[in-house]
Amino acid sequence: MGKAHSNAWKKAPEFFEMSTRPVLNVACGRHETSLKEFADKWGWEETETDWKKMVKRPDIDIIDIAVPQNLHYEIALAAAKEGKHIFCEKPMCMNLTQAKEMLKACEENKVTHYLNHNYRRNPAVALAKQMIDEGLLGNLFHWRGAYQQDWIVNADFPLTWQLKKEIAQAGPQWDLNSHSVDLAHYLVGDIQTVSCLTANFIKERPLAEEATSGNLKAEAKGTGKGAVTVEDAALMMVRFKSGAIGSFEATRFATGRRNHNTFEIYGSRGSLLFDQERMNELQFYSHDDPEGRQGFKTILATDPSHPFMKNWWPSGHNIGYEHSFVHAVVDFIKAIEEGKTIAPNFEDGVKIIKVLEAGIKSAETGQMVVLE
Amino acid sequence: MGKAHSNAWKKAPEFFEMSTRPVLNVACGRHETSLKEFADKWGWEETETDWKKMVKRPDIDIIDIAVPQNLHYEIALAAAKEGKHIFCEKPMCMNLTQAKEMLKACEENKVTHYLNHNYRRNPAVALAKQMIDEGLLGNLFHWRGAYQQDWIVNADFPLTWQLKKEIAQAGPQWDLNSHSVDLAHYLVGDIQTVSCLTANFIKERPLAEEATSGNLKAEAKGTGKGAVTVEDAALMMVRFKSGAIGSFEATRFATGRRNHNTFEIYGSRGSLLFDQERMNELQFYSHDDPEGRQGFKTILATDPSHPFMKNWWPSGHNIGYEHSFVHAVVDFIKAIEEGKTIAPNFEDGVKIIKVLEAGIKSAETGQMVVLE
Amino acid sequence: MGKAHSNAWKKAPEFFEMSTRPVLNVACGRHETSLKEFADKWGWEETETDWKKMVKRPDIDIIDIAVPQNLHYEIALAAAKEGKHIFCEKPMCMNLTQAKEMLKACEENKVTHYLNHNYRRNPAVALAKQMIDEGLLGNLFHWRGAYQQDWIVNADFPLTWQLKKEIAQAGPQWDLNSHSVDLAHYLVGDIQTVSCLTANFIKERPLAEEATSGNLKAEAKGTGKGAVTVEDAALMMVRFKSGAIGSFEATRFATGRRNHNTFEIYGSRGSLLFDQERMNELQFYSHDDPEGRQGFKTILATDPSHPFMKNWWPSGHNIGYEHSFVHAVVDFIKAIEEGKTIAPNFEDGVKIIKVLEAGIKSAETGQMVVLE
Amino acid sequence: MGKAHSNAWKKAPEFFEMSTRPVLNVACGRHETSLKEFADKWGWEETETDWKKMVKRPDIDIIDIAVPQNLHYEIALAAAKEGKHIFCEKPMCMNLTQAKEMLKACEENKVTHYLNHNYRRNPAVALAKQMIDEGLLGNLFHWRGAYQQDWIVNADFPLTWQLKKEIAQAGPQWDLNSHSVDLAHYLVGDIQTVSCLTANFIKERPLAEEATSGNLKAEAKGTGKGAVTVEDAALMMVRFKSGAIGSFEATRFATGRRNHNTFEIYGSRGSLLFDQERMNELQFYSHDDPEGRQGFKTILATDPSHPFMKNWWPSGHNIGYEHSFVHAVVDFIKAIEEGKTIAPNFEDGVKIIKVLEAGIKSAETGQMVVLE
Repeated sequence: MGKAHSNAWKKAPEFFEMSTRPVLNVACGRHETSLKEFADKWGWEETETDWKKMVKRPDIDIIDIAVPQNLHYEIALAAAKEGKHIFCEKPMCMNLTQAKEMLKACEENKVTHYLNHNYRRNPAVALAKQMIDEGLLGNLFHWRGAYQQDWIVNADFPLTWQLKKEIAQAGPQWDLNSHSVDLAHYLVGDIQTVSCLTANFIKERPLAEEATSGNLKAEAKGTGKGAVTVEDAALMMVRFKSGAIGSFEATRFATGRRNHNTFEIYGSRGSLLFDQERMNELQFYSHDDPEGRQGFKTILATDPSHPFMKNWWPSGHNIGYEHSFVHAVVDFIKAIEEGKTIAPNFEDGVKIIKVLEAGIKSAETGQMVVLE
Repeated sequence: MGKAHSNAWKKAPEFFEMSTRPVLNVACGRHETSLKEFADKWGWEETETDWKKMVKRPDIDIIDIAVPQNLHYEIALAAAKEGKHIFCEKPMCMNLTQAKEMLKACEENKVTHYLNHNYRRNPAVALAKQMIDEGLLGNLFHWRGAYQQDWIVNADFPLTWQLKKEIAQAGPQWDLNSHSVDLAHYLVGDIQTVSCLTANFIKERPLAEEATSGNLKAEAKGTGKGAVTVEDAALMMVRFKSGAIGSFEATRFATGRRNHNTFEIYGSRGSLLFDQERMNELQFYSHDDPEGRQGFKTILATDPSHPFMKNWWPSGHNIGYEHSFVHAVVDFIKAIEEGKTIAPNFEDGVKIIKVLEAGIKSAETGQMVVLE
Repeated sequence: MGKAHSNAWKKAPEFFEMSTRPVLNVACGRHETSLKEFADKWGWEETETDWKKMVKRPDIDIIDIAVPQNLHYEIALAAAKEGKHIFCEKPMCMNLTQAKEMLKACEENKVTHYLNHNYRRNPAVALAKQMIDEGLLGNLFHWRGAYQQDWIVNADFPLTWQLKKEIAQAGPQWDLNSHSVDLAHYLVGDIQTVSCLTANFIKERPLAEEATSGNLKAEAKGTGKGAVTVEDAALMMVRFKSGAIGSFEATRFATGRRNHNTFEIYGSRGSLLFDQERMNELQFYSHDDPEGRQGFKTILATDPSHPFMKNWWPSGHNIGYEHSFVHAVVDFIKAIEEGKTIAPNFEDGVKIIKVLEAGIKSAETGQMVVLE
Repeated sequence: MGKAHSNAWKKAPEFFEMSTRPVLNVACGRHETSLKEFADKWGWEETETDWKKMVKRPDIDIIDIAVPQNLHYEIALAAAKEGKHIFCEKPMCMNLTQAKEMLKACEENKVTHYLNHNYRRNPAVALAKQMIDEGLLGNLFHWRGAYQQDWIVNADFPLTWQLKKEIAQAGPQWDLNSHSVDLAHYLVGDIQTVSCLTANFIKERPLAEEATSGNLKAEAKGTGKGAVTVEDAALMMVRFKSGAIGSFEATRFATGRRNHNTFEIYGSRGSLLFDQERMNELQFYSHDDPEGRQGFKTILATDPSHPFMKNWWPSGHNIGYEHSFVHAVVDFIKAIEEGKTIAPNFEDGVKIIKVLEAGIKSAETGQMVVLE
């Protein structure tokens, strides 16, 4: 994530017009050697191993929180108190109580807060939002989302921090469904009821020596065994306030699905399909098309008229995963400059965590949870 | 359905080796004129408007039940008592009590019973079964099924019998999820728990003058309004006895989906994807493939080595919807000849209805139902 | 082909309204035993091993020619002289001289002639024609066709009749490009210039004992070796009279392509894509769509409004390879009844053979051929 | 192109290990104001409007040529004489004579030369090369390439420099087929014969006021009319030295195709399909797969084991168009450091131009050209 964020801060002013150019001031991390290396590579001016010192520096305006979720709460609170604007990775935090306090701290200290559900700023997804807002889908009936990965299908994959409740709080319900619920809120609306079912397919895994940097998934090596304390997969069924219904499927056991973040939205006038593995495409069905000429149309969302795209390449030239981070930086800086909010933010985060927590509760009781 | 069944009885012995050739003896229906026309067209030797008389005829060995589900119970019971073998359309009947009695009657009278969940005999689906049985998917983790249609999205579509509880018992939960649950039983195994959510998007519709024959969907015309008494969409989450989990989505409001019967199955060694709108294809991912060479492979299931296909056309020449009915006739006749059972049958039907009923109950209570 | 034709004659009046119902009168073939078996299976009333006798029978109105192309000329001439209407398999014959005589004989004897380039009556292809005629593609710029198969990739596949010039005249140039050129004529227009390149990848093959019936491809077995005397692949580049340009690729060496008959047509207002392996689909791009909403749309050509489809199944229910033969029978019988021509016929066949022959000549000389 | 190149020089050392870090020393361009703006944005240290001065500066090691092709020759020659290494955009130059001299100048001056046919360094394409080299395709039979765009379909699109022979030399034959021929050389081998057909669909266009910077395509505005002096589309058929045959289709009139650079390669053991609009995917068919389990497999080339990918994001996270430029920079710098050649270079360029020129000649004469 350090890589994706550093890249975004640097590329934003190269590809977009920005009146304020972000400065890569201080890189913060626990391990001095690897931190220095990272900072050198990416052009961070200084390094710091104590985040508490960093948030107090008067020469810093923005804190970018890109650490595991168990640390978000503490850092965000401290940063907000120091009047720093916050760019925060997802999932937001460990529970609803934390989320509400984080939001409150930002509001009280009048800082700009952004929660990095980056897929909203994928051009094809932003296009979906435009089309829904224009009414091209009519009344929405269905959300059908799935966020499927397969990185822990092998039983000898080690017990990394993502599989431990004390650090991660939950498995794909937190990591993946947070993204999907954000998109559902963004595109369909608020959720009213939640039913959830979870599964744990592999209950024990080799212990991992936590790597100090880099890709934990690849480098971790097992020594002994320990219990997996988060779920491996989480399904949800929801009813939206609008009357639409939705389903969610988040899993790390969908063999063959590397990062298959998909949704289908069906409405009275049309439908949309999206798949992050073909992230430059959006499929659109229009019920308004003449009889016999109807079908799902694959829009390659790389035209200059598509959101964010006139700043990149000519039509038909794809962008990649990291570009949505650049878009987030552009909008975040603009929000700070103009003193406006940016979405998704901690208010959206509170709503997401509420749904995810309700899901965990429903999975435990077998009962549908009605959100207040 | 009369068309699809008549066609199947006739084509079966033309394309397949059969020691017994079915005779199209008596066509039965309520409306004499249209019945005669139909019988002439398809070469039925005689017609009959009273099914009670027909099931007693000694010159008939098989009763093919292709009427709305509220009539299945009565006809099947009478046919079984007369020692007729039964080829029965789905959904099997109105409730679990009926289903159990239908099964019992067939067993007591030692007749062959077949429940026409025809998709099992789609070559690509039969291939999926083969591959799972060979162990190519390993331990199964996920079933993700959806059966999506869009034929009642328009609010002025009339209140046909499929939308009335007294005839149809339920909406897509009965009509579509019965198919999906059958496939899940077939491919993944028995279901242990069921949670369900339903929705009704359009609560009143123009009254239909029930057409006397042909495609009700197209011909019905509204006069006045009446209440829709079945659900428009039904979602389910299930836990299988094996520990796998599954989701189902059945709807008539997925705009753009004409007959989108799909499933995804993920296992420890591989995965399969199917979509009835591309019914000649099966997608397969093998975790055993070498690193860097992995991906979903589209098998065009039209090779002579694929189930049922050596009797049709050369490789690469597609078959259509009706061919699975032909395959069912071939296997049904063979089962009768050999005195063996054929699947799916009323025993499978009992299990399906049990799941569907549990779903309806769960939708009412918001609580997960554990099947005995 | 006997199977596909017999099936078509029988199914046509079951699925379509026809005032004349075809009678399966006499099945003709060389091998009495297998012929009888075939006739029994399909309900042919009589059999005949001498086609010269058959064409003279006064009780026969139609001759259906479904034998290798080296026999078409002689049979068609005899049949025409006897006043029989002709339903003729493709490729039409061995050369342009034959083709012109066949046409002349039919015209002089005023018989209806039909050349079975069946893909025209695939609903998705007929829809393409409709859309082009409606002007939805504007002025056409490009035809890009490919008909790719892979049934002789293995070097031990035997030397069946399709690989011998004396029976087949040519390889995929005749067998496959005849289909593609027919579609190009139908959808784009007449061809003016032809450049062609052919290749022969495997020059000798095991001799085949010609099987007397059934699927030669599967059953033939090699004994000794013989020379392949037709090309294995044929590429063409053409200029149409309209100014559009086109390319053709016909091969039996496209490993993985079972029956991949595809085309792309690009015009000033829109474009169409078709692939016979997904024969129920047509892709359409409309340049008239609003900016940012453009893309290729997959039309599932199974709606009642699509050509031929209201006689089959509800929307979303696929048809297969053989259905286009049924449509041909329906239109052929109608043409006879009404005394009108049907297309494609021998006139179209003459034009096709002219292009194919020009291609063979161009391949020999390396020079573009301008058609008169 | 300035954007894509600047980005590549900067990103390369951030994402890859490089012992030499490129310095963005001098940006060169004709228009001082826009040049300064560009240099500021991208962090170029200095600017220069006279390229002749720039190539003589002793503090510069590399010249990156990203101007229209009519200027490549002169700049490359001057740069080579000064001992500068050359990173040159495609198409290489205006004709074979220039190409040969450019190569000679580099060889004599012992400078590293790279010709930016960037698609070779698209991970999915590099994977294709690996797989072919491993023998997974066996003997190659067919190359079927198409590079289709649609940016000049509208008749009111102005006469930009790309449509003028004096600057561009040719149309898609130069611009697009140069890429395709490079890929065919890379993946299949050398070409022996060339037949070509070109078309010009719109012969006159509004004059463009050439914009001084930015996207010409979008900004140019018409005043009066002028003749289009390059072809709009170019088809080629070739025979490779190996005996394989190939087809090429390059056009700016494939309505709906934004940047549809595709190829199909068929061999005796397997086949590969690629489409730049889905640039992270490679389709692979293996004839070695067991019977009944064969099909085209979509490899999402984003795994760490795929070429270049371990330096980017986790599996399933796409990269975009510009990433191949970064890969080129990494390999180019390494080649300079190690004193080795990099491909494609001017030697490859000479071979490409030879094919393209032969194509133009063949299109004029209607005759196949045999390359020496």
